[in-house]
Order: sequence, then C-alpha cells, then structure tokens
Amino acid sequence: MKIPEKTISRLSIYYRQLQFLSQQGTFSISSKSFSELVGFKPEQVRKDLSYFGSFGKTGFGYNVQGLKLEIAKILGLERSKNVAIIGMGNLGAALAGYRGFEAQGFKITSLFDNSPHKIGKKYKGKICRDVSDFARIAKEEEVEMAILTVPAEALQEAAQIVVAAGIRGILNFAPVHLKVPKNVKVNNVDLASELKSLSFFVSGTKRD
Amino acid sequence: MKIPEKTISRLSIYYRQLQFLSQQGTFSISSKSFSELVGFKPEQVRKDLSYFGSFGKTGFGYNVQGLKLEIAKILGLERSKNVAIIGMGNLGAALAGYRGFEAQGFKITSLFDNSPHKIGKKYKGKICRDVSDFARIAKEEEVEMAILTVPAEALQEAAQIVVAAGIRGILNFAPVHLKVPKNVKVNNVDLASELKSLSFFVSGTKRD
Repeated sequence: MKIPEKTISRLSIYYRQLQFLSQQGTFSISSKSFSELVGFKPEQVRKDLSYFGSFGKTGFGYNVQGLKLEIAKILGLERSKNVAIIGMGNLGAALAGYRGFEAQGFKITSLFDNSPHKIGKKYKGKICRDVSDFARIAKEEEVEMAILTVPAEALQEAAQIVVAAGIRGILNFAPVHLKVPKNVKVNNVDLASELKSLSFFVSGTKRD
Repeated sequence: MKIPEKTISRLSIYYRQLQFLSQQGTFSISSKSFSELVGFKPEQVRKDLSYFGSFGKTGFGYNVQGLKLEIAKILGLERSKNVAIIGMGNLGAALAGYRGFEAQGFKITSLFDNSPHKIGKKYKGKICRDVSDFARIAKEEEVEMAILTVPAEALQEAAQIVVAAGIRGILNFAPVHLKVPKNVKVNNVDLASELKSLSFFVSGTKRD
C-alpha cells in the first residue's frame, strides 16, 4: 500500500508532540486534545494512523508512550541513523552542531567539502573530508542520509555524488529543485517559506 | 473572517510554485496541473483561494502572473520586509547570508547578539549590535520580523525583548516551544522533522 507523503510528514509532527508529552510525564491523551496539539482534525490523525494498524481505543484516547514507539518504528527511528553533510559553509557548520538532530536519532557523522580551505578543518570535533572520497567514506561510516548545504550552482553535482554512493535520502537546503532517480527521496527546506506565512500575520495585524 | 493557518502556509507553497512557473515563462496553467505541482487536491487549492475572492475560470485554469501578484498581496509580499536576526552563532551567520531570503522579499537588516565577542563584528557586511539596544534599533530600521537563533536556554528572554519592541512575527529555530502574547505569531522551524520523514523513505526502500 502506498502511504501518502503528507501522512509521513504529519507522523513526524505527531512524533514530536508525543515526545513533548512523554517528557512532561503525560501517560495518555484524548484524541481530541491530541488533535488540538498537533493542529489536525481527529479524523485526519485517525486516518493517518490507520495505514499502520489500529491505535487508541474509542473513549480512551492514545497511550503516549505506546504510540510514540509505534510511530518511531514506522518512521524507522528505533535506531539512530548516520547523516553526512556536504558543503561546510556557515549553514553546514551550523547544522554540524545543531543539537536538535541527535535528540531525534540522527547522528552527523561525516562532513565534506571540495575546498582545500575546508578539507582537513575541524567542525564541532569532526574533520571535514574531500567530497571526492564521499562514496568510500559514506560506505565505511554507514551513512544513510545526506544534507546538502552547497551553493545552488554546485547542487546537482553534489547530488550526483551522493546518489552514486547509494544514498537514498537527501535533505536539500538550496532554493533550487533537484533532479534525482525515482528511488531517491529529496526533502527541500525552504527557509524563506516560513517567513512568508509570518508576513501574512504581520501585515494582517498591522491593518487592525 | 478567520483564515486557517494551514491555508496561509499552503499559499506560501503556491506562491513559490508560481514564481518557478513565471521564471520558466509559463503564462497559464490548468488547475489540475497546478494542483499536481503543489501537491494538494484541486478542491483544496480552490478552497484556499476562495477565502480571498475568485481566481481562475473553469476550463481556463490560472493566470500565472495574475495569481502570483494576488497571493503576494494576500501574504503582504508586495513590498520587501525588514528582518532582524538575534543570535549570531553559526546558524545566525548562515541565515544572515542566506540568498533565498532577499529573492523572496525579506531583507536581513539588523543583527544582534549579547556576547562582547560578537557585538561589533561584521557578518556579510552587517555589524552585529548589542541585543540590549534591540528596541531602539528595530524601530529606527523598521524591522517587522525577527529570527531567533539563540541557544534554547536564552530563547524566552530573547523573545521577550523582541515582543516588548513591538515585533509581531517571530521565526524560532530553537527546538523549544515559545510563550508569547496572542497577537504575536511564532513559526517554529524544526530542522530535524525533515530528516524524520526522510528516515521513513530510507528505511522503507531498504526493506525492498
């Protein structure tokens, strides 16, 4: 069965919320309260979960810990995953030290660049290596996903190196579309899009 | 009328797609093709747009340039907006130079930190100033939105400074929830959540 992509991205949101609830010591939560927290209708949440089995009892809501573990399994988060970053500009360096990743089960293991000024340099205790060694190193270090923080003009070439090395998950920060084979999944992070929806609220409140 | 937040965030996606189409020289597009490009059902797109008037003729689709301008108006993007960044670590420095912002109508005008090592330092040609001068400088430089790239433990304090200065749009990069007054809008960027949905695909394809 084909799972809609939107379902998968909503599952990440549910998972994050369940982590918050679990940290707060919440044992169970009604489907209504949970749906308000995540910002989707109860029917939507139920439908998303129904792809993977049955969760929650009518009238009892969700068991926080149980649902969290189930979603972790679905998303493949039961074990931590190794991630490489290609492009050690400011954004790459920031992501190499971003504390939110490790807490979510992602380990930034391998850093790459093509500039002699960056190769050999340490970022957060990790040495930046030559991207032309990507395939060998990614295999040795069991890298499963790659974050691309290269300039737009270098993006397609970097993606080709990553894809040729057998990586099937790419997180792209360049504001440019990437062409990849069908079996490779690219998520694009558009840092400006979040500002755009803020812009609406800022403009709206100004009119009051 | 209250516009759903999801509608606003979908409008940002429509806008970006219309920019791509416009750059490619596309004059008009069927509602079916447009809906496929943005990844939402035609009915959803139509409903989102219907909050703001009537767009597109049945059987004719959308006029790319016209719809783009209308959405720009709705989102308050007709004129460029000044944005401040608080927290000049790697992520702040990366965002100060992120080329995707300017192209979308956001101008990073003002940089702040509380560290004497950073105050006075230049990032991408802009001087980092003392965050304790935020209110005065934000007013002088007509800042309308703030990006917070401070460590989690400094987040709430930074937010208070920004809110006290009258800023009503905050983009938060710390993986922590922010408490703000009702008339202030916070968008949280969770850099790990994008990795999580990739994780599903990477795990899924491995099972093949």
